[in-house]
Amino acid sequence: MPVFQAPTRDTRFVVNEVLGLESYGHLPGFEAATRDLTDSVIEEAGRFVNEVVAPLNLSGDQEGCTRHPDGSVTTPKGFKEAYARYVEAGWGTLAAPEVYGGQGLPHVIGFVMEEYLASANQAFAMYPGLANGAISAIASKGSPEQQATYLPKMVSGEWLGTMNLTEPHCGTDLGLIRTRAEPQADGSYAITGTKIFISAGDHDLCENIIHLVLAKTPGAPESSKGISLFIVPKFLVNADGSLGDRNAVSVGSIEHKMGIHGNATCVMNYDGAKGWLVGEENKGLAAMFIMMNAARLGVGIQGLAQAEASYQNAVTYALERRQGRALTGPAEPQQKADPLLVHPDVRRMLMDAKMFIGGMRALCLWGALQVDLSHKAATEEERQAADDLISLLTPVIKGYGTDMGYKTATDMQQVWGGHGYIAENGMDQFVRDARIAMIYEGANGVQAMDLVGRKLALNGGRAIQRLFAVIDAECAEDSADETVKLVAERLAKATGHLKAATMWFLQNGMANPNAIGAGAYAYMTLTGVVSLGLMWLRMAKVSAAALGQDGADKAFYEAKLLCARHWALRFAPQAGALRYEVEAGPETVMAMTAEQFAA
Amino acid sequence: MPVFQAPTRDTRFVVNEVLGLESYGHLPGFEAATRDLTDSVIEEAGRFVNEVVAPLNLSGDQEGCTRHPDGSVTTPKGFKEAYARYVEAGWGTLAAPEVYGGQGLPHVIGFVMEEYLASANQAFAMYPGLANGAISAIASKGSPEQQATYLPKMVSGEWLGTMNLTEPHCGTDLGLIRTRAEPQADGSYAITGTKIFISAGDHDLCENIIHLVLAKTPGAPESSKGISLFIVPKFLVNADGSLGDRNAVSVGSIEHKMGIHGNATCVMNYDGAKGWLVGEENKGLAAMFIMMNAARLGVGIQGLAQAEASYQNAVTYALERRQGRALTGPAEPQQKADPLLVHPDVRRMLMDAKMFIGGMRALCLWGALQVDLSHKAATEEERQAADDLISLLTPVIKGYGTDMGYKTATDMQQVWGGHGYIAENGMDQFVRDARIAMIYEGANGVQAMDLVGRKLALNGGRAIQRLFAVIDAECAEDSADETVKLVAERLAKATGHLKAATMWFLQNGMANPNAIGAGAYAYMTLTGVVSLGLMWLRMAKVSAAALGQDGADKAFYEAKLLCARHWALRFAPQAGALRYEVEAGPETVMAMTAEQFAA
Repeated sequence: MPVFQAPTRDTRFVVNEVLGLESYGHLPGFEAATRDLTDSVIEEAGRFVNEVVAPLNLSGDQEGCTRHPDGSVTTPKGFKEAYARYVEAGWGTLAAPEVYGGQGLPHVIGFVMEEYLASANQAFAMYPGLANGAISAIASKGSPEQQATYLPKMVSGEWLGTMNLTEPHCGTDLGLIRTRAEPQADGSYAITGTKIFISAGDHDLCENIIHLVLAKTPGAPESSKGISLFIVPKFLVNADGSLGDRNAVSVGSIEHKMGIHGNATCVMNYDGAKGWLVGEENKGLAAMFIMMNAARLGVGIQGLAQAEASYQNAVTYALERRQGRALTGPAEPQQKADPLLVHPDVRRMLMDAKMFIGGMRALCLWGALQVDLSHKAATEEERQAADDLISLLTPVIKGYGTDMGYKTATDMQQVWGGHGYIAENGMDQFVRDARIAMIYEGANGVQAMDLVGRKLALNGGRAIQRLFAVIDAECAEDSADETVKLVAERLAKATGHLKAATMWFLQNGMANPNAIGAGAYAYMTLTGVVSLGLMWLRMAKVSAAALGQDGADKAFYEAKLLCARHWALRFAPQAGALRYEVEAGPETVMAMTAEQFAA
Repeated sequence: MPVFQAPTRDTRFVVNEVLGLESYGHLPGFEAATRDLTDSVIEEAGRFVNEVVAPLNLSGDQEGCTRHPDGSVTTPKGFKEAYARYVEAGWGTLAAPEVYGGQGLPHVIGFVMEEYLASANQAFAMYPGLANGAISAIASKGSPEQQATYLPKMVSGEWLGTMNLTEPHCGTDLGLIRTRAEPQADGSYAITGTKIFISAGDHDLCENIIHLVLAKTPGAPESSKGISLFIVPKFLVNADGSLGDRNAVSVGSIEHKMGIHGNATCVMNYDGAKGWLVGEENKGLAAMFIMMNAARLGVGIQGLAQAEASYQNAVTYALERRQGRALTGPAEPQQKADPLLVHPDVRRMLMDAKMFIGGMRALCLWGALQVDLSHKAATEEERQAADDLISLLTPVIKGYGTDMGYKTATDMQQVWGGHGYIAENGMDQFVRDARIAMIYEGANGVQAMDLVGRKLALNGGRAIQRLFAVIDAECAEDSADETVKLVAERLAKATGHLKAATMWFLQNGMANPNAIGAGAYAYMTLTGVVSLGLMWLRMAKVSAAALGQDGADKAFYEAKLLCARHWALRFAPQAGALRYEVEAGPETVMAMTAEQFAA
């Protein structure tokens, strides 16, 4: 049975010491987030997922979800009870607005819980996770009546929500959708069509499910300029808030997937189901992107989460399993063999993982802080700056974070050797679950194009210039600490490569858009490498300072400095190769004909 | 249903035009391998796997193997019939020695069949694949009686074989095995113990299975110097060659694995089973390495094979699936969307795959030629040179080949987007099947240590110097062709990084063995990048020359030149980053304490 303990110590380090969350206490929405409160929320959240959610991960994978002959769907054993406890404890309400019954804490704290849940059990985490996107869309684009009708129950977790975008013939290209919405006399719409890959599409966790559905009204323009967003509840809601008739939406089947078996990925059939327009007709894409951006950050966190869960199990195994001897002579001569941890290549994989996890956690929580500041900072300029940074980094957190999450889960499985390939040990589940995060909510290639094709160019490149300014300032600070100096030097160099790649796009992208497309992925990865470096430079500074204090937890801060050095010495060099890949241009990528590919 | 067509055109290009197999016709064992013959064997082999083996891949994954209450094991539907046709056609005999009923063709041709089988159905391919290792061990270390008793039936495929090494508490560290071999009055041994992860451990494909089992005789030294190798047949063989009593070996269970479900991975219980010593007592490791080296090359080929199979399906999908528009404007304006193939990032993944597959195929077949030449070349010096090269490159073909096979299968799944995550489409099977190849027959970290810790140092570094000499000579040849010049220049530069990394080990490895261990993996990858480059330089030269001929298949050779440029422009830059990772040394890898890892 795999182990899991929420990494609360590391979370508190980031929240308190790196981000200094308490220092924002003068801003609205941050007042309640005192260190005492956030520390206790973090510890309680960790306890909850450790005890209630993590134990259902492997069994949920093995059992999967079931569609019964009557069309109803049940989740794996224990999910319903665990979700009831989740709702009862109010875990879904942490960062939700108080006006809908939320606790109004910063998103930073909401992200912490998202990470823990996804680490403990990604399939389970997706049920409330998907609802978050639906809540965001209704909160920002719904009418006051819609908000009053749906949000309190969704925020409390009594009802859950879904995002219905993909159809059999289209996913990325939503302009092609065929689901129709016919206006009805009562102001509602009749929704008809088939949606696929609908995560948490139906289940037994709660009494109602609020589907957010993209569809086309009669005469709507072809292309994504003709799509509208609708609320389609599983059970209609009466004026008094009680549940009414079952709506004409049903589950055609549950998909057989590589992983996340505990989440019911459904084919949804809408047969004239009653729906209500969210916002305006033909403006569905904007509303959809509100859901999507929240979801993308959530998916990036899943990359971190699977890396963390698999790392913990790899460390456990590396300490227990004895095989071979240290290269420098037996470490434990009284035993017949040394623990795996003596082997440099096992340590390399664990260090790569620990470096990624620590850096990525900081990046995700720093990103969450930007989400908060984009709404709550004192000045418009500060809000704009935070929004620029998180808009720029959302595709990086999603794309690079999930690529590295999968790579880490694969490496951690590798630490287990042959036993990692055996289903009962759970290491292959981390890999299979991590795999989906590279695909859904916009495949990682789409993230790369969002970064380079959209975010880079917006407002004359203001967002990337802001990031460079942040990095340059961070690198320019003097330090007597050897590690800080090393990391600053290597980060400056890696950022130089990122600047060069950015300049290359500027010079070549206008003339040939394929130059952008062919280099986008390498650029996203390069931005990821640099972003991790920025986080490690900050953490190195905090750790070096902490080590100068009496009574500091030496082992903890020294481990941070080691990870920072590991980034500088062994990861930063990737930046050059990635920049050269960008600068290689589109030639070899675009030249091959269809016949040559197929030959 | 996934598609598969054996890539016979590309194989013939490598065998005939790149390796020039026919030019070795003066050597013993090569005489029969005329171009006419090998071309027809390649085409026939392709037809056989396309029609008989490939159609069982997805169904075999879904059905898996079954252990029945009586302890017998059955393979998925169709495997038994397909294997009977394989034996009937003599496909297992291609490269086996004529003295045992083989066809005595070069290993190059045997490798071709191994690749095709593994591409079409890796789980199926492993049944005869494992037998190859057992055959090699008996052929080189068995007594004449053992050879006469077992080899003709094993070569014909009437009997299959297995390799029994791993035990529950040890895999890599075979010195720890506990299986006992008690000498009996009749000269046999009574074998008692439990072996795990035994691929093709039992099944219904053939009438007898010859297990090769590592065990310890009484009083044998602890450590790998005390292990011996035994032949333990499932059914004892009478003096007249007929089958006698069932031996005391049974299947405890079949493992539930991430992939290769069609192969019965068994827990084998030996309860005083009758076994016969192969070679001398306590010399089992040497015999085991004979099996292992053959098996490692076979596993490297599996990396190539899964890359090829997944690539074909990704290309098919990229041509059929329409989503979005080309960045330069609609490519097919009359359609609602363009095929995926217009998107640069989709093309990037396909080009990376095509480049890897073409380069890796050449590397594997060139490796096979070295195996042949190590036995058959005219002079001892030539035999030694070939042996040096293949010994050096075996861990690279296994380690780098399977890493890239998994990466490629993952990328090809990515081309399919959400549909790639759905089991029925088969793209996730390629990933799951490819994953095991990084683990078995020595995890890839073990390959890296074999390369750097063993192969690099042997005979004063003679093998790597030979590789450098081959590359330097290849780069030094003048060419008027622009691509050849570019690839030669980039290969020389990448090789410069490999030389520097080699020198770094030389200077630092003696003083600190952990310096070797911490850099070994990056070095193996670097050697892989360079080896692919060497192959692409050769293929670029052949292709440039062919394009100068009348009636040349322009599209084919131009595609080769594009792949060569793709290596030079987009892969070669990795060499620098990998060299710097080696030179970063062991510091950050070795410093973390167990407590810090576990914190």
